[in-house]
Amino acid sequence: MAQKTIQLQPMERGFHLITDRVQAAVSEMGGEGAGLLHVHILHTSAALTLNENASRDVLHDFAEWFDRSIPDGAAYFQHTDEGPDDMSAHIKSSLLGSSVTIPIRGKNLVLGTWQGIYLCEFRNRARSRSIVLTVIRC
Amino acid sequence: MAQKTIQLQPMERGFHLITDRVQAAVSEMGGEGAGLLHVHILHTSAALTLNENASRDVLHDFAEWFDRSIPDGAAYFQHTDEGPDDMSAHIKSSLLGSSVTIPIRGKNLVLGTWQGIYLCEFRNRARSRSIVLTVIRC
Amino acid sequence: MAQKTIQLQPMERGFHLITDRVQAAVSEMGGEGAGLLHVHILHTSAALTLNENASRDVLHDFAEWFDRSIPDGAAYFQHTDEGPDDMSAHIKSSLLGSSVTIPIRGKNLVLGTWQGIYLCEFRNRARSRSIVLTVIRC
Repeated sequence: MAQKTIQLQPMERGFHLITDRVQAAVSEMGGEGAGLLHVHILHTSAALTLNENASRDVLHDFAEWFDRSIPDGAAYFQHTDEGPDDMSAHIKSSLLGSSVTIPIRGKNLVLGTWQGIYLCEFRNRARSRSIVLTVIRC
Repeated sequence: MAQKTIQLQPMERGFHLITDRVQAAVSEMGGEGAGLLHVHILHTSAALTLNENASRDVLHDFAEWFDRSIPDGAAYFQHTDEGPDDMSAHIKSSLLGSSVTIPIRGKNLVLGTWQGIYLCEFRNRARSRSIVLTVIRC
Repeated sequence: MAQKTIQLQPMERGFHLITDRVQAAVSEMGGEGAGLLHVHILHTSAALTLNENASRDVLHDFAEWFDRSIPDGAAYFQHTDEGPDDMSAHIKSSLLGSSVTIPIRGKNLVLGTWQGIYLCEFRNRARSRSIVLTVIRC
């Protein structure tokens, strides 16, 4: 099986490490040799990115910078029907991106020592998020 | 045929949905099974991203945020030969990225209900834009 | 050989073109037909992006915008143990991304006339950086 959808439980607004969950799913998918793993989120108010996996302070500081730089309910936003955190979430989502692509060898993600996968949740009251994993071998 | 270049007509500065155009090209390319579609723009003053496909207000608000956050003709820009919208376009292009990668099954893009593909045009007087589509099967 | 790690010498803080180095490594890897090249940096305080390959002023202006928009040592950063340029580097890294994916034909990167690959170094005193190249054929 080279393509699989997983559901992530609702998470608080902020940045969350999901590397273990993704690695476990990739291990279940099996396969050998070198390749690429594509991780894609099926939503427009959340994102995926790679960053520092050791310090909880980094997760906090990400939230601070993004919340200050893309403010909820900016006066010039026209898309306001779904609340002040909706349009800001869309912009943050595109700045970080809907997917990450990671080298793999066998069942192992090839990440740097400090790299982890972040689920970036931008809504105040988020639902479950769906993620599609695709493995392509060389 | 697994790799194909398409031409997009010149578009106004702003954010534009091109999902239908990309889906049509992928359908023509044919193929079966799960895989990935890579969509790559061959330019440095435009970008591709995935975001909300239903509200025109979202497209407007994207333009507002990007134009305010990366101002045309910033006083500290040295690269000014091609006009005040050129250097800002380069920065916007890298923030959003030159490509999107999307899961596919058969000829169908696997996107969330609200996800569409945006062509992000940052020049005031844009030319036609070339996009390379590559399909890789699992 | 479809996956390969290369080491880049330490570079000054700023934006640097590495297209030639990547193209040379891809040529050594060999292979035929259409496909994709994935270039991945194994670090969280540097990034990869595609942008204008001709003007040194563009590299300068990128550094200016990023240094102003994500300031070193922002008062609200909690992750400060590794110096004022560390947390800002993490945010910049995610904004630009840890990888770029580029169409290839045979041994040739399919890039626009003006597109080059940037190594974005955000630390004041950077070490050598490791990059993983993966080639997938259609």
